[in-house]
Amino acid sequence: MHRNGFAKGHLGILLLSYLPLATLLNPTCNPGKPGMLNVHFVCHTHDDVGWLKTVDQYYYGAKSSIQRAGVQYILDSVVSALLEDPTRKFIYVESAFFFRWWDEQTPELQEKVKMLVDEGRLEFINGGWCMNDEGAGHYNAIIDQMTLGLSKINETFGSGARPTVAWQIDPFGHSREQASLFAQMGFDGLFFGRLDHDDKSNRWANKELEMVWEASANLGKDAWLFTGVLPNGYGPPSGFCFDILCNDDPIMDDPRLREYNVDNRVEQFIKAAQTQAEGYAANHIIMTMGEDFNYQSSEMWYKNLDKLIRYVNARQQNGSNVNVFYSTPSCYLDALNKANMTWPTKTDDFFPYASNNHSYWTGYFTSRPTLKGFVRQSNNFLQAVKQISSLLEMGQDPRLERLKNAMGVMQHHDAITGTAKQAVTDDYYARLTEGVTESFNLVAEAYGKLQPSVPEAEAKVTPVFCPLLNESSCTLSETSPSFIVTLYNPLGKPRMRYPVRVPVPKDIAYKVTDHQGNAVASQLVPVPENVLNLPGRKSSAEFELVFIADIIPPLGFTQFFVQRTENRLFYKTQQSKIIVPQTEEELTVKFKESLLLVFDKTTHLLNAIGIEEGGEMKTLKVNQTYLWYAGMPGNNVGEKNRASGAYIFRPNGTSPFTIADKVNITIIQGDVVTEIHQTWSSWMSQVMRIYDGDLLSIEMEWLAGPIPVDDHIGKEIINRIVWGDTSTGGTFYTDSNGREILQRIKDYRETWTLNNQEPVAGNYYPVNSRLMILGKNGFMAALLSDRSQGGTSLDDGHMELMIHRRLLHDDSFGVGEALNEEAFGEGLVVRGKHHLIFSDLAPPGCDFGCLQRSLGERVMMPPIMSFMSTTLPQQTWKETYNTQWSGLQQSLPLNVHLLTLEPWLDGTLLLRLEHMYELEESNPHSKPATVDLKDMFSSLEVISAEEMNLAANQLKKDGKQYHWAVGTSHPSTNDIDSITGSRYGDAVDDGFTITLQPMEIRTFVLMVKKSTKLH
Amino acid sequence: MHRNGFAKGHLGILLLSYLPLATLLNPTCNPGKPGMLNVHFVCHTHDDVGWLKTVDQYYYGAKSSIQRAGVQYILDSVVSALLEDPTRKFIYVESAFFFRWWDEQTPELQEKVKMLVDEGRLEFINGGWCMNDEGAGHYNAIIDQMTLGLSKINETFGSGARPTVAWQIDPFGHSREQASLFAQMGFDGLFFGRLDHDDKSNRWANKELEMVWEASANLGKDAWLFTGVLPNGYGPPSGFCFDILCNDDPIMDDPRLREYNVDNRVEQFIKAAQTQAEGYAANHIIMTMGEDFNYQSSEMWYKNLDKLIRYVNARQQNGSNVNVFYSTPSCYLDALNKANMTWPTKTDDFFPYASNNHSYWTGYFTSRPTLKGFVRQSNNFLQAVKQISSLLEMGQDPRLERLKNAMGVMQHHDAITGTAKQAVTDDYYARLTEGVTESFNLVAEAYGKLQPSVPEAEAKVTPVFCPLLNESSCTLSETSPSFIVTLYNPLGKPRMRYPVRVPVPKDIAYKVTDHQGNAVASQLVPVPENVLNLPGRKSSAEFELVFIADIIPPLGFTQFFVQRTENRLFYKTQQSKIIVPQTEEELTVKFKESLLLVFDKTTHLLNAIGIEEGGEMKTLKVNQTYLWYAGMPGNNVGEKNRASGAYIFRPNGTSPFTIADKVNITIIQGDVVTEIHQTWSSWMSQVMRIYDGDLLSIEMEWLAGPIPVDDHIGKEIINRIVWGDTSTGGTFYTDSNGREILQRIKDYRETWTLNNQEPVAGNYYPVNSRLMILGKNGFMAALLSDRSQGGTSLDDGHMELMIHRRLLHDDSFGVGEALNEEAFGEGLVVRGKHHLIFSDLAPPGCDFGCLQRSLGERVMMPPIMSFMSTTLPQQTWKETYNTQWSGLQQSLPLNVHLLTLEPWLDGTLLLRLEHMYELEESNPHSKPATVDLKDMFSSLEVISAEEMNLAANQLKKDGKQYHWAVGTSHPSTNDIDSITGSRYGDAVDDGFTITLQPMEIRTFVLMVKKSTKLH
Repeated sequence: MHRNGFAKGHLGILLLSYLPLATLLNPTCNPGKPGMLNVHFVCHTHDDVGWLKTVDQYYYGAKSSIQRAGVQYILDSVVSALLEDPTRKFIYVESAFFFRWWDEQTPELQEKVKMLVDEGRLEFINGGWCMNDEGAGHYNAIIDQMTLGLSKINETFGSGARPTVAWQIDPFGHSREQASLFAQMGFDGLFFGRLDHDDKSNRWANKELEMVWEASANLGKDAWLFTGVLPNGYGPPSGFCFDILCNDDPIMDDPRLREYNVDNRVEQFIKAAQTQAEGYAANHIIMTMGEDFNYQSSEMWYKNLDKLIRYVNARQQNGSNVNVFYSTPSCYLDALNKANMTWPTKTDDFFPYASNNHSYWTGYFTSRPTLKGFVRQSNNFLQAVKQISSLLEMGQDPRLERLKNAMGVMQHHDAITGTAKQAVTDDYYARLTEGVTESFNLVAEAYGKLQPSVPEAEAKVTPVFCPLLNESSCTLSETSPSFIVTLYNPLGKPRMRYPVRVPVPKDIAYKVTDHQGNAVASQLVPVPENVLNLPGRKSSAEFELVFIADIIPPLGFTQFFVQRTENRLFYKTQQSKIIVPQTEEELTVKFKESLLLVFDKTTHLLNAIGIEEGGEMKTLKVNQTYLWYAGMPGNNVGEKNRASGAYIFRPNGTSPFTIADKVNITIIQGDVVTEIHQTWSSWMSQVMRIYDGDLLSIEMEWLAGPIPVDDHIGKEIINRIVWGDTSTGGTFYTDSNGREILQRIKDYRETWTLNNQEPVAGNYYPVNSRLMILGKNGFMAALLSDRSQGGTSLDDGHMELMIHRRLLHDDSFGVGEALNEEAFGEGLVVRGKHHLIFSDLAPPGCDFGCLQRSLGERVMMPPIMSFMSTTLPQQTWKETYNTQWSGLQQSLPLNVHLLTLEPWLDGTLLLRLEHMYELEESNPHSKPATVDLKDMFSSLEVISAEEMNLAANQLKKDGKQYHWAVGTSHPSTNDIDSITGSRYGDAVDDGFTITLQPMEIRTFVLMVKKSTKLH
Repeated sequence: MHRNGFAKGHLGILLLSYLPLATLLNPTCNPGKPGMLNVHFVCHTHDDVGWLKTVDQYYYGAKSSIQRAGVQYILDSVVSALLEDPTRKFIYVESAFFFRWWDEQTPELQEKVKMLVDEGRLEFINGGWCMNDEGAGHYNAIIDQMTLGLSKINETFGSGARPTVAWQIDPFGHSREQASLFAQMGFDGLFFGRLDHDDKSNRWANKELEMVWEASANLGKDAWLFTGVLPNGYGPPSGFCFDILCNDDPIMDDPRLREYNVDNRVEQFIKAAQTQAEGYAANHIIMTMGEDFNYQSSEMWYKNLDKLIRYVNARQQNGSNVNVFYSTPSCYLDALNKANMTWPTKTDDFFPYASNNHSYWTGYFTSRPTLKGFVRQSNNFLQAVKQISSLLEMGQDPRLERLKNAMGVMQHHDAITGTAKQAVTDDYYARLTEGVTESFNLVAEAYGKLQPSVPEAEAKVTPVFCPLLNESSCTLSETSPSFIVTLYNPLGKPRMRYPVRVPVPKDIAYKVTDHQGNAVASQLVPVPENVLNLPGRKSSAEFELVFIADIIPPLGFTQFFVQRTENRLFYKTQQSKIIVPQTEEELTVKFKESLLLVFDKTTHLLNAIGIEEGGEMKTLKVNQTYLWYAGMPGNNVGEKNRASGAYIFRPNGTSPFTIADKVNITIIQGDVVTEIHQTWSSWMSQVMRIYDGDLLSIEMEWLAGPIPVDDHIGKEIINRIVWGDTSTGGTFYTDSNGREILQRIKDYRETWTLNNQEPVAGNYYPVNSRLMILGKNGFMAALLSDRSQGGTSLDDGHMELMIHRRLLHDDSFGVGEALNEEAFGEGLVVRGKHHLIFSDLAPPGCDFGCLQRSLGERVMMPPIMSFMSTTLPQQTWKETYNTQWSGLQQSLPLNVHLLTLEPWLDGTLLLRLEHMYELEESNPHSKPATVDLKDMFSSLEVISAEEMNLAANQLKKDGKQYHWAVGTSHPSTNDIDSITGSRYGDAVDDGFTITLQPMEIRTFVLMVKKSTKLH
C-alpha cells in the first residue's frame, strides 16, 4: 500500500540510515522538483468545535441560517473525493468531530477510510479533541484534550496514523508552553495562522516566518519545535478559494467558451506563488487550500485544484519553475527538513496578538469569566474523578468519557475563550454540567466502594455536590440537621489546614467533629449582602460555617460530621466579631500578630500591610481596589473604529475609572478566619480574608456584576494592586498556560520594535494562574487567580487582573454579538478569588518560589467537597464507616505534582508526574525529584511502567524528532543547551524509582494489580 | 439489472398484457403499499440555463457572489451519491447542461452513468435542451429545442432512456400548445409548479390538481396529456429542504444529543404528507425534493432523506399509514395510472399566471422586445440553414450545432422571457449572434456549392449578411457600386411579390435587374428621422431602395443585380413623392383605388379605413395609436406594493397615457410602396405601409425608445387599435405558441370564478403571432406580430399589443434588477412590425382564415437576404452563375407548412410537415392535405420515410400512451372525440403520399440519395 515505499531503493542503505524517521512514515510524500518553487497544496477544513452554532449543530449542519456548516457532510464528501482519485490528499484536525462521524459509518466505509489513512491520503493533523485555545487554556486541560483525541486515533488507526504536525491555525496568539507541550508530545512541527501584524511583516521581510521555537527555559531541546507561520492565515491565496462557501471563479477550461480563463488563472496563480515565496526561505512553500467549514462539497475544491495543478505544471514545458502538487503539512515539513537549511530561533511567545494597530485580542483572556471559572473547576473535578476511577480500578466508564469529552470541547478556541455566541455558550455550560453531574455519580459509586457493606440504609445515601457553593448556597447543608462533609484531595500530597465553608441558615449553631470524632473549632461568618442579593439566588443560607480541615490525605478523603445543636454556648463561640466602623477612622486588622492590614480612613481601601519581621512590624505601602475601563464603542469600519468586544480589549482612554470614592467596610473576626467585607457598589464587592492555614495569603473573593450599562458604556472591571515603594520598571511575569513563567516588559517585544498604539490593551497578557512582579529591591509579589484572566503591570509596583467584562458592541471578528452576558434579566454576576502573596509571607523553609508554586498547586486543585445527610449518631458513623482514606501509600515529594492518574487501555493506568518548579526558582525545590512508582499506591501494586511521550501515543524511546540546524538563538535569561536541560547533573532512573528534572513531565502507562500489602 | 423486472410474475400473462408499456420500461419503480399514503420522493435540481448568471457561469459555478450555483458540481455530486446507494434516485432535466458535463467525463465514469440510467436510478425528465418558456416561446423553436436534447439522450443512452414525463416546473404559466406538443412527442404526462393562485386553491379544495389536459381542439386524444400540478411549486414541503442552499435542520438522530429531533421531525413530516394528501385524489403523492441548483452537495439531501425514509416508515409498525420512498415522476405517474381512477379534464390553458392578486406574470410576454425579435428572426435563419444543409447534404456541421444550441438556450424560461439579468442577456445576445454568424458561413459555403466552378475571382466572394438591416443600415449596400442581393425563401412554397429593402446613401440612383436580367421597378424611400437619429447608428444610408421580388422559389433563392447609375432619369423615377401636410387638413392616402387610409386632421392619427367593396367605398372607423401605461412603483412588501417589473405587468391605474396629442406625419408615395411616417415624439414613431404585394395588409413598423424616464416613471408602450363599430363584448383570440387559436374572454376564466383585481394586467395574454377579434357582425381582424408580445382586448373592438417596456423597479421575483434596458447610455430602442388585417382584405379564394394563416406563415419566415459585392458586368453574372434555384421539385400545398428539414443521423434527413389550418378555420384550406414525399426535393430522391413521433426519438408506431379514464369534459367550442381528430373522414397515406389532418404535424426520418432526375 505504501506505493512509493521503495521507489528510492537504489539510493541504498546509506540514505535510509540518514533519513529521519518521519520520512519513512511518509513514503507517499511528493518530494517536489529540485530547483523549482515547489508549492504544497494542503487541502483542509477548519471546523470549530462550537462557535456561532453548537458543536452538535455544526456536526449535523443544523441552523444553516446562522452558518452554512455541517461537518458530517464534509467528511462524507472528502472521503468520497479522496476515493475517486489517489493523488488527492486531505488533512483532518478535530477528533471531536471525526470520531462522531466515524462511529456512524459502515464497516465497509471504515475499511476504506483506514486505507486512505494508511496510504497517507487522509492524514490526521493536531489530532486533539479540538484545536485548543492557547491564551485561556490551562496546561492540564490542554494535555488532556490532546491525549483524548490522539489516543482515539491511535486505537482506531494504529501508530502509523499518529499526527506528527501540530496545527494551531486559528487560535488568537500562541503560547510558548503550548509549543513545549507539542514538542513533548512528539510533534515534529507546528503551523499557525495568527500573529501580530507587525511581527508578521517583519518576518516576511526577513524570511523568518519559519523558525525553531526554543519553547522552554528548562527542558532544552526536548522542547524545541519547528514552527511555521502560514502565509494567508489559513486560507488559500487570494482568488483561489474554490469552496461552495467562496466566491472565486472556477477554472473554466472549455476553450470554446467566451469565459475560458485558464491562461489568466494560471498566471494569477504563478504570481501568487512567487509573491508568497518572497516571504519564505526555502524553495518549498505551503498553501492552505481551505477555510472554516470548507469541503462540504469537496468536489468543487478538488476539481479546480486538479485543473490548477495540471495547467500550472504544464507551464513547466514553457520554462515556468513553479511546481505544484497535493501535499500535507507533514510532507511539507519533511521537504523543509530535507532542504538542510539553517533556521532562526524564537524563545518568547506570540502574545498578545494584534491583527492591526487597534485590535489587540486581549479581551478574550477574560471574556465570560464564569465560564472560565467553571472550566477550571471542572478540570479539577475531572482529575479527581480520573484518580478515583484509577485507584478503584473502575476502568474507562462512559460517564467519565462524557466529562472528558465535554472538557475537550471546552478547550476549543471559541469555547474557553468566551468568544462563542451566547446560545452556544449556554450549550457549553449544559454540556459541561452534564459531564460533571454524570461523573459525580461515578464518584458517589466509588465512595460507596470504599465503605464496608453495612445494613444501615445510610450506607446507600448518595453524596451530593452543592454546585452553587460559589453563591454560598447548598440545600442539604441549609436544611439537614445532621450531615457529613466529605473532602477529597486530588493532590499527590496531603492538604494541610484547609478551610471548609458550609452555607447554613442564621441563628443555628453547629457541632463539627472530624473523622476521628474530635471536636473541631468552627466559626459562623455572615454571607456578604451582595451575595444575599444575587439575582436568582434561592437560598436560606445567611451564614457560612467555617472550620479548618487539619489534614486531607493525598488522593484521598476525610470526613466531618456536622450537627445542629441547641447548645447556645456553641452558638456563642461560633459567632464572629463584627466591626462596622462608625466614624472616619483608619482601620487596622491584625492577624495572629504577624500580619496587619491597614485600610484608609476615608476610602476604606487597603493602603498598607504590616508584616512582622524579626519582632518588628514592617510596613508595606499597597493599595488595592477595583476599577473599570470604558469599553470602546465603534462600528469596526477602519481600524480606528474597532470596538472592545468578546475578542478585543480596547479601552476608551488609558485610565480606568473608579467605582466608588469610598467603600463600605465590615470586619469579621473569629478563631478560624478574619474577613474584611468591602462594598464598592451594589454590583462590586469583595471579601478579603486570611485563614489560619499553613501558608499565609491574602484571599480576595470578589463579586462583580451585574455590571451596569444604563449609561450605554460597556465596562471592563479590573482588580488593581499597587505596591508603593517598589520599582518594577514595566517588567512583570506571567505564567504560560499555568506552567513556566515568562517575563513581560511594558511596550516591548523581544523580536521586533513595537509601535504600540494601544497603551493598555497592547500590554495585556494571558494570566492562567499568576501574575508576578519582582521589585528592583528584591521584593516579590504574586497575584494568583482561580481562572484565566488578562493581566498587566502598567506602572511601578502595579499588578492588574481583569475580572469581568460587559460590552455593548460586537468587535466584528465573527461572533456577531456584543459580549453582554445576562442572567435573570440582568448582567451576569461572577464570583472568584485572587490570592495575593509577597515575599515576606514566605514561611521558613519555603522561599517565595516555593510559596507561589505551592499555593498555585492548591489554588488549581482544591479539595472536592460533598455532603451526605445522615440520621446516624456521630459515634455510630465514626465506628461503622471509613471516614478517611488515601489512595497513595505516601505523599509525593513537595516539588512533584501528580498531573494525571487515569484509567487507560486494558486495565492499565496513565500516570503523569510533573516537577513543578523551574530551574533556580526555589531552593531546594528546583532540584531533581525522585519518585518510587512501585509502591506509590496504597491498594495497587505497579507491575510495570512503560514511559510514553506526553500524549501517551508513542513509547518515549521510539520518539525521534527531526534535526534542525539553527542560527543564533535570541537572548534569553534561561537559555539552555544541554540535552537533558538539567543544571543539577544527570539524575537517572533506577528501576521503578524515577527522577524528574525541573519542569519535566513524565508519562507512564502502568500495569497494576491489587496490592497484597495492607494499608 | 432490472432487478424487479419479474417480481410480479405470478400475476401472469394477463396482467402483462394489460399493463401499459411504460410500466415495462420502469421495472425499478417502487409500487408503494396498498392502502397506505404512498409518498414519492423525487430528488431533483432545477438548473436554469442562464438567469442571474450566464449559462457558462452556471455550469462552472463562477460568480458565486451572485448565486451559489455550479451545475458541474451537481452532476459530479449526484452521480457519486447514486453510486453509493442503489435505492437512491435522481432525475435530470436540462440537456444543455447534462451533455456539457457528460463530454468532460472519463469513459469509466460514463459507463457507470449508463448503468445508473439503465437501472432507472438516474432518469432523464423533459430532456429538452432547456426547460422552455411557454408564454413567449414559438412552437417551431420549442420543437427544435426539445428535439435537440431528446435526440442527444437517445444517441447516448438508447431508447430505454427516452424521457416519458414532461417537467415544466418553473415556467410562468402553461400553454395548451405546449401540452399538445408534449403529447405528440410521446410524453405520458406533464408536471408543473406555477398556476394562478386561486386556480390552485380551487383545485386543491376539489382534489383536481391532477387532470387530463385535452390540449388540442383539432387533434383529439393524440393531444391528451395527463397533467399534474406539483404541491409546493417544485420545492419540498416546508421544513424539509436539506440542500446546502437551504436552512432547514437536518435529521439529528444520535439519541445521546440534546438536539435529537427524529420524533419531532417524523411527526412534522407525516403531518406534511397528510396535509398534502388533502389536495390530491389518489393515495400516491409526489414530493419534489429539490430546488434551484440544489444537490451541489448532494450527500446533504440524500443522507437526510435516507434517514427520513427509514424513520417515517418505521412508524408503520406503530400504525402509521405513511409510506415513503425514492421515486421518479415516471414511477409516480405509473402509480397514478395503476390506481384506475377517473380524472377531471381541462381544455383551456394556464394563462395568465398570477402568483397573487396583484402579481400577474404578464409583463414578461413583452419584456426585452429586441431579444424576442432577435430570437424569432434567428429561428427563421436556423430553419433556412438546416434546410440548405439538408438539401446540399452537408450533414450535421458543428457550426449548425452552435446555432441549434444557442437557439435551444434561448428558449429557456429566463431567456426568451426577458427575465434574466442584463449581463446574462448580453451573453444570450452574444451567444446567438455567434451561432448566427457561424451558421452564415455555412450558408455561404452552401451558396458556393450551388455555383459552377468558374475561374473568376468573384465566385469566391463570400456573401455577407447585413445584421443591422433593422436600423436601415448595411455597409455593403451603402458603399458598393455594384452588388448582388440574394433572397432565400425558407417556405415550402414560392414567395410571391416580396418587397425588398436595401439601405443606400442619398442622391444615388440604382438599376435593379432580376435573375434573368430583367429590369425591376424600384423606389427610393427616405429613412425616417427617428431611425437616422438612432443612438449608435453608424450608417450613411438615408434611403432605402425598395423593389418587389416577384417570385422566390420554395426552399430556394433568387438573385438581383443592383448597380449604381448616373442616369438621372432613373434617379427621378425612383424618387418617392413626399407629402408633408402644411395646414390642418384631413389626410387620405389611397392605395390602388381599393384601400383608403384616413388620418385625423388634428391628431394625424389613423381614424378610418376605406375599402372598396363591389365598386363602393365602405368606411370602417378605426383608430390606431401608441400609448403608455405607467409602471407601478413599489417595494414589493405585501402584494399591494408589487412593482411592475421584468416578470410582472402592473400598470399604475387602468388607462394608458397618450404620448402626444398630435403626431407629425409625412406621406411617401411611389410605384412600389406607399408609406405614412408618423412621429409621436423623439422616441416613438411608426411607418405605416402598404406594398403592392399579393396579400394586402397594413404594415406598421414601429420604432420605440429610448423610453424617457426622467419623470421617474417606468413606461410600458402599447399599440392600440380600436375598431369603431364593432361589438366584441370582451372576447378575443390569441394564438398558443403561434399555432392553435384560443378564445379569451375579459375578466373570465373557464375553470374558476375570477376575482380580477388587476383589470388590465389580469387580461393580458401571450401573443406569439396574432391577436384577433371577431365582431358580432361577422367582422374579423387580426394583428400579427413579428415577435412574442403581450396583448389584450379591453373593450369593444380593441386590439392591444405591448411593444416595449422600461421600468425602474425590480418586481422582486429574483432577477434583482429593474427592467431598465440601456444601450449607448440611453434606453434601448426597438423596431418591429405589426401587420393589421381584417376580413375585408381577404382576396378572392382566400377567406379570412386563409389570409391570417398565410400572412402568419410569411411573417414568421421571411426570405433571408444577403449581399455580394461584384465587379462583373450584370450580363456576365447572369450568364455565368446560377441566379435562381429551388430545393423542391414542386411547391407544397398551400395549407401545408414545411416545419423542419434538417440533417439527421447517418446522412438521413428529418422532415416535419404541418397542416397549418385548424378545423373549420378556412375553406378549403382546413381540408386534409396530401404530400408526395418521394419526389419532394429537386436534387434528392427519398428512398424511405420512417414516421417518428414529434420529437423524432421514437418510431410513431411504437408510441403507446397510458389510458386515462376521464369525467365530464369541460365545455369547449372545439370538442373532439374521434381518435384521428379529423372531421373530413379518414384520409389515409398511400405509399410515399401522406395525408395531413388539420393542425397535424407529421415527422419523418428520410433516407435520401442524389436524385437521378434533372431539374
